[in-house]
Amino acid sequence: MSNVFDEIQRANNAYAAGFGTKKDLSMPPARKTAILTCMDARLDPAKFAGLVEGDAHVIRNAGGRASDDAIRSLIISHKLLGTGHWLVIHHTDCGMETFNNEIMGKLLSESLVTATIDKDGWKNQVKSRGSLEGKYINWLTISNQKQSVLEDVNRIRNHPLVNKDVIVRGFIYDVRTGILTEISGE
Amino acid sequence: MSNVFDEIQRANNAYAAGFGTKKDLSMPPARKTAILTCMDARLDPAKFAGLVEGDAHVIRNAGGRASDDAIRSLIISHKLLGTGHWLVIHHTDCGMETFNNEIMGKLLSESLVTATIDKDGWKNQVKSRGSLEGKYINWLTISNQKQSVLEDVNRIRNHPLVNKDVIVRGFIYDVRTGILTEISGE
Repeated sequence: MSNVFDEIQRANNAYAAGFGTKKDLSMPPARKTAILTCMDARLDPAKFAGLVEGDAHVIRNAGGRASDDAIRSLIISHKLLGTGHWLVIHHTDCGMETFNNEIMGKLLSESLVTATIDKDGWKNQVKSRGSLEGKYINWLTISNQKQSVLEDVNRIRNHPLVNKDVIVRGFIYDVRTGILTEISGE
Repeated sequence: MSNVFDEIQRANNAYAAGFGTKKDLSMPPARKTAILTCMDARLDPAKFAGLVEGDAHVIRNAGGRASDDAIRSLIISHKLLGTGHWLVIHHTDCGMETFNNEIMGKLLSESLVTATIDKDGWKNQVKSRGSLEGKYINWLTISNQKQSVLEDVNRIRNHPLVNKDVIVRGFIYDVRTGILTEISGE
């Protein structure tokens, strides 16, 4: 069976062979932009936003949420590397809409193995060694996409370490069409 | 002056116009892979690892560190969406090597405006409204890239919510060559 690590190394060899002038890129993002979005495999922010290497910081986590860690990254992005345009991008059909803290805590307490979902929700197929640690984590799930975008934009704008000159705007990306739509609070 | 938000919307229109069969992608990553890497603008993980939309979760933060939030995302990636191959990728010439908690706390206490760096280190050019909040954050800076990769891989492997069947490997990406090199602890 082909090994994904080997496949990635082969793909990387080809990429590095054509690296060209990218060797001269500097650290501060050329377009002074940072994007906060979801880890979802269907999203390629560089492609859907038209970015090339050197253009923008990209911060990604489960949900594209304004977690403390995302805010740590954004503050470094502005304070040390000069970005002033921030996009918070959530998306349709997000996995974070399929569960909540109680569900995840219970699933992990029964087993660490991958669960399955059907019309009745998430279920463990395998009961094995689990851990209660999942009950102590806020999984930052989403019940309403538009609201989660607005709340995250609001949290970032009002953070005491965020310079008021930074422009923060919220968007939803549609995984069925590729379209990015701005969400405004008005 | 051209507005970066408008430029991104125009680029997105072109991307969505050629979306094609990507509309049928499903949520679980096709290649059962998750990548944790840095937000650095010079890194395009899809390009340097040969991934297309639908292949892999991508988690990014300042440094590509195994923060609590990155671990939240990785656990969701395996427990709910079935990834079993995780790559932790730090990189050469990382901004996280240029400061530490004390420096960042002091810079932010004096001003929230972007600082500058020269051979003597980071300096605020503008003194304005600052905040002491920066002193309460662990910025997860890096003093040795190889060591930070190994420590982060180790933290993930030993986390009580991480299934021991997940394969976690560490790498350093060279921003001058595009080459990805595996880092092993032996």
